[in-house]
Amino acid sequence: MIIVIKPNTSREGIDQVIAEVAKLGYDPRPIFGTEQTVVAAIGDERIHHTLESLNVLPQVQEVLRVQKRYKLVSREFHPEDTIIDVDGIKVGGPHFTVMAGPCSVESEEQLLSTARAVKAAGATILRGGAYKPRTSPYEFQGLGKEGLRLLQVAKKETGLKIVTEVLSERDVEHVAASADILQIGARNAQNFQLLIEAAQSGKPILLKRGMSQKIEEWLLSAEYVLAHGNPNVMLCERGIRTFETFTRNTLDLSAVAVAKAESHLPVIVDPSQGCGKASLVAALCRGSVAMNADGLIIEVHPHPAEAMSDGAQQVDFKAFEKLMADLPPFLKLTGKGM
Amino acid sequence: MIIVIKPNTSREGIDQVIAEVAKLGYDPRPIFGTEQTVVAAIGDERIHHTLESLNVLPQVQEVLRVQKRYKLVSREFHPEDTIIDVDGIKVGGPHFTVMAGPCSVESEEQLLSTARAVKAAGATILRGGAYKPRTSPYEFQGLGKEGLRLLQVAKKETGLKIVTEVLSERDVEHVAASADILQIGARNAQNFQLLIEAAQSGKPILLKRGMSQKIEEWLLSAEYVLAHGNPNVMLCERGIRTFETFTRNTLDLSAVAVAKAESHLPVIVDPSQGCGKASLVAALCRGSVAMNADGLIIEVHPHPAEAMSDGAQQVDFKAFEKLMADLPPFLKLTGKGM
Amino acid sequence: MIIVIKPNTSREGIDQVIAEVAKLGYDPRPIFGTEQTVVAAIGDERIHHTLESLNVLPQVQEVLRVQKRYKLVSREFHPEDTIIDVDGIKVGGPHFTVMAGPCSVESEEQLLSTARAVKAAGATILRGGAYKPRTSPYEFQGLGKEGLRLLQVAKKETGLKIVTEVLSERDVEHVAASADILQIGARNAQNFQLLIEAAQSGKPILLKRGMSQKIEEWLLSAEYVLAHGNPNVMLCERGIRTFETFTRNTLDLSAVAVAKAESHLPVIVDPSQGCGKASLVAALCRGSVAMNADGLIIEVHPHPAEAMSDGAQQVDFKAFEKLMADLPPFLKLTGKGM
Amino acid sequence: MIIVIKPNTSREGIDQVIAEVAKLGYDPRPIFGTEQTVVAAIGDERIHHTLESLNVLPQVQEVLRVQKRYKLVSREFHPEDTIIDVDGIKVGGPHFTVMAGPCSVESEEQLLSTARAVKAAGATILRGGAYKPRTSPYEFQGLGKEGLRLLQVAKKETGLKIVTEVLSERDVEHVAASADILQIGARNAQNFQLLIEAAQSGKPILLKRGMSQKIEEWLLSAEYVLAHGNPNVMLCERGIRTFETFTRNTLDLSAVAVAKAESHLPVIVDPSQGCGKASLVAALCRGSVAMNADGLIIEVHPHPAEAMSDGAQQVDFKAFEKLMADLPPFLKLTGKGM
Repeated sequence: MIIVIKPNTSREGIDQVIAEVAKLGYDPRPIFGTEQTVVAAIGDERIHHTLESLNVLPQVQEVLRVQKRYKLVSREFHPEDTIIDVDGIKVGGPHFTVMAGPCSVESEEQLLSTARAVKAAGATILRGGAYKPRTSPYEFQGLGKEGLRLLQVAKKETGLKIVTEVLSERDVEHVAASADILQIGARNAQNFQLLIEAAQSGKPILLKRGMSQKIEEWLLSAEYVLAHGNPNVMLCERGIRTFETFTRNTLDLSAVAVAKAESHLPVIVDPSQGCGKASLVAALCRGSVAMNADGLIIEVHPHPAEAMSDGAQQVDFKAFEKLMADLPPFLKLTGKGM
Repeated sequence: MIIVIKPNTSREGIDQVIAEVAKLGYDPRPIFGTEQTVVAAIGDERIHHTLESLNVLPQVQEVLRVQKRYKLVSREFHPEDTIIDVDGIKVGGPHFTVMAGPCSVESEEQLLSTARAVKAAGATILRGGAYKPRTSPYEFQGLGKEGLRLLQVAKKETGLKIVTEVLSERDVEHVAASADILQIGARNAQNFQLLIEAAQSGKPILLKRGMSQKIEEWLLSAEYVLAHGNPNVMLCERGIRTFETFTRNTLDLSAVAVAKAESHLPVIVDPSQGCGKASLVAALCRGSVAMNADGLIIEVHPHPAEAMSDGAQQVDFKAFEKLMADLPPFLKLTGKGM
Repeated sequence: MIIVIKPNTSREGIDQVIAEVAKLGYDPRPIFGTEQTVVAAIGDERIHHTLESLNVLPQVQEVLRVQKRYKLVSREFHPEDTIIDVDGIKVGGPHFTVMAGPCSVESEEQLLSTARAVKAAGATILRGGAYKPRTSPYEFQGLGKEGLRLLQVAKKETGLKIVTEVLSERDVEHVAASADILQIGARNAQNFQLLIEAAQSGKPILLKRGMSQKIEEWLLSAEYVLAHGNPNVMLCERGIRTFETFTRNTLDLSAVAVAKAESHLPVIVDPSQGCGKASLVAALCRGSVAMNADGLIIEVHPHPAEAMSDGAQQVDFKAFEKLMADLPPFLKLTGKGM
Repeated sequence: MIIVIKPNTSREGIDQVIAEVAKLGYDPRPIFGTEQTVVAAIGDERIHHTLESLNVLPQVQEVLRVQKRYKLVSREFHPEDTIIDVDGIKVGGPHFTVMAGPCSVESEEQLLSTARAVKAAGATILRGGAYKPRTSPYEFQGLGKEGLRLLQVAKKETGLKIVTEVLSERDVEHVAASADILQIGARNAQNFQLLIEAAQSGKPILLKRGMSQKIEEWLLSAEYVLAHGNPNVMLCERGIRTFETFTRNTLDLSAVAVAKAESHLPVIVDPSQGCGKASLVAALCRGSVAMNADGLIIEVHPHPAEAMSDGAQQVDFKAFEKLMADLPPFLKLTGKGM
């Protein structure tokens, strides 16, 4: 770490910083500049005490971190792309994966008709929420275990793999019994206990970026999963919260390029949550492919205007079929295939 | 709800909207304006299907919500201030409450010396993290149950009540056994399962605002607690995430005034997290009092430069004593007393 | 507009709102719901007094706008794409246009070598700042008139058209004499006097989105130009300011899709400002094409590490050549050609 | 500056960085750590070429700035508070100044009645917009020169000093002839040409913080004014743009404390723009005083519901009188007087 000392600090003040740096386990190296002094603290920042606490000293202007905070998720540590095997479906590397299905599982008919439609259009993984995190306690909270049962029925019929959200540590075990991928939603992106318990289930994890999570923090959430023994994390960009209100969130497609450069993990894009408007989904799917994403997770509903959650962002079967038909030539240009 | 229809929509398009509104359980009332048609949907938005799904129809420009989404937390529903009894300490109404202590419980000596110092300066509730939500898995995660034991020791010696964070549903029961107030942290502000389980413990809840939570959403998180039978929620403003980097977060003091106008619940301010810089804490405490907050939660450490977490924002004993000495004349002007 | 009245308001309070609505020039139509009353105000919001002032009345909960605020830029008003003729180069519709060149004009050699390189790679318009808006007064402010002269030299030699920023009303006339397109920078996106004076020059305008400008506000800035008689506006998405710090700004590629749906104006993307990192530019160019942008404006420098401004985001000649070579197959899929 | 080099960089790659640092005018000092190498570049960052361009090199991880970028506005450079003389009214230091008046000058009667009311309640400076920056070209743009004339009439009658916004370089001269303080609005906070021309008028400047301006950038805008020979700048916090929609902006009261610590310039708060809601203004005024602001600028209108701009945030005479009556005891505690 680098400790920047304020201009005009006395030698005594500088020495106090040097002493604290040494006390906290680093080798201090002062550099006396023309205007200001900085103290470089030599040592591995990941195993020592952070020196950010030195900001509290009145003579310290700033403490600058040198090392990256993530390691297992880092491409520096693991240069080749991670490819995850989801019960026979590959995610990452040359593979492009489409996950699709309703926001919420509402009924057998709704789920099965959607499963058939998304399969016919080329999806290989079925999404569907059984447990729904809803902003208000008065909104539809999902069918729970009955929803999981219906997902199993759909899997049996169509052969699609299942991705569904887990909201609670207490649900990890039974959700893991029904799902091929556990989704950690944006609101739980820093619910570290849930991350750890999901990691320990051994199932692949789809980790949504938190609504106001910096890319570094998102990678650190993934680091929690890897550090608890589960290497199978798919990062999912789903839009961040900004001042813009025309779209529900601001889909950060740069983050796809950044995440793929910084990490070896596959990156999936959720354009439905990302914009909140069905009419924008197809364009964002094409943009995601061109940005080299490894897959998409798309909300599809037989009749979005009557959906029990997030109808505004769900596409119907016809729109889904059309957007899927547009993707292969773009994919070909990126060297990936569905 | 109000459905705004795009200009130049055919009568048939308008009728389709009217039919959907009726189908979804509302009484539709079209109003034909000079430029555009709107359809007012008469009915209680809290018990019906939301009509936001109608945004998916191509002729719909926008769907506008009329009713507020929260009810139990609302001052419309409950005009008098809620006063919460924390094992004999009153929070809310005419009472001003100071909670103080270290970011993390680190050792018996650290905790007890701090407890004595904050008590001497006028705090009545001791804060201290036993379970710490840390952005990186390599950072100090708290002492866990040993931390809870030390909080009990400090309570026994000083008589201070205890507020500490609960991170996991699986910890609610034993944390509730050691704490007088359960804190739900910013990262878990929309971890609804944890909110529900904490609510059911019967303990008063200190609910931090999420890092990117709108005031409405923060009140809806509180609504979850009340809707699950626990009326004792303290709202805690702790800064929101913005583009500003000089301060760690942007403390939203307007939100104190808004929350107190919209809700009957007490509002506590956390200036330590709110700015991330010890040197700003005293000024923010005075500002919070003047804005009519019901209390403060302040991080205090015997030697902040060597703290195991968030040292930069912790004040030492002397600074805490001084800032506490400044508050009484301000409090007197607001009609509150410690 | 729709005025939402608080629950439990007396009939007298409702009548006061109705009377104000009528006084301010609208035809008031109250709708009495089961929980709340709303008053629809019939009339053209664009020519009447806004009713948002009614928010000040204690019985008013909220005032909701019905009409869109822009008209001339709106696709509702002008369904076909606008195609702008920049001294023979077409922008918009089926045409895809690449503008490229250094952030700042630094010297004749720097500019000419860059002009030749970008032309050879397929750009048709040369960018280069002669007047630079710099955050600090101590940073390089551009060569001014000498920079404009060098741009003319480059135009004469290469035939490239010129786009350059105008910072001051006092410079509009002489910048317009040297440039084919006047750029309005993000910091001046709501400098309405500059917009008006630039509009009146008759030159095409490249209008960058302000750093924290909502899409609606960006379109309204364009509306200023059209309302002052100049139909030739290119909207330029260049990233918005968010909490993310890994990238300099967050490039909002959804805004491309939104702007093209809402407006008939061409939309250009600036990936260099958008991310602030040269290594991300190529991927963002591909993403922009796939999102159906009408063009790109890219910063190119002979030796970015020694650039006098924004070196970190400029690509060198080789990287530019490579990224340009990647675009044609993507463009072909969108039906556009360079 | 500090250049952080990526782990595992070859000695050759490090030497290339060292050579560039030297070439760009600094004295390079490499520090070889256990995990990574950093190069400290010794030299005055304010007079040398910025090294941020080195980010473009593939072996560079990050470039960290050491020195603060502002100098003349800095308290390090000028420890005592600046006190500005506005035609006999002192702003800054022990003085607390209230500026009040309508958002826009609408008519003689409106302005004079307001001027009398705000004077009676204790304001010493009259605000009123003659030139209004409006998001839409169809909104009321102010009375222009007639507005300035009316401000002069009000000054003559009441003795109040005048603060009014200048939007255009072309207006600086005649606005300066009518006004005692030139206001630079949030939308022009980085319109550097306007800042320079306003600076050169010699009049005191009220500099609003831009909607998404970091505190550092706001101080650098002030630095432009001082660097162009005008030491009389009042910084004005008026709320920043965030994701929150309940309030129009998020008033950043921490920024008052930060600006007063970093700079010797007076800091004024605009609670009206800051929240956009008349009902919150009084509380924010008290908060601002407690945070040690040097003054307030408050929007007051005889009949806010019928105001031609921003009615929702203007208080009427009675509310203004009441909020002013509340301030003196708070002021007394901060050692300031009106």
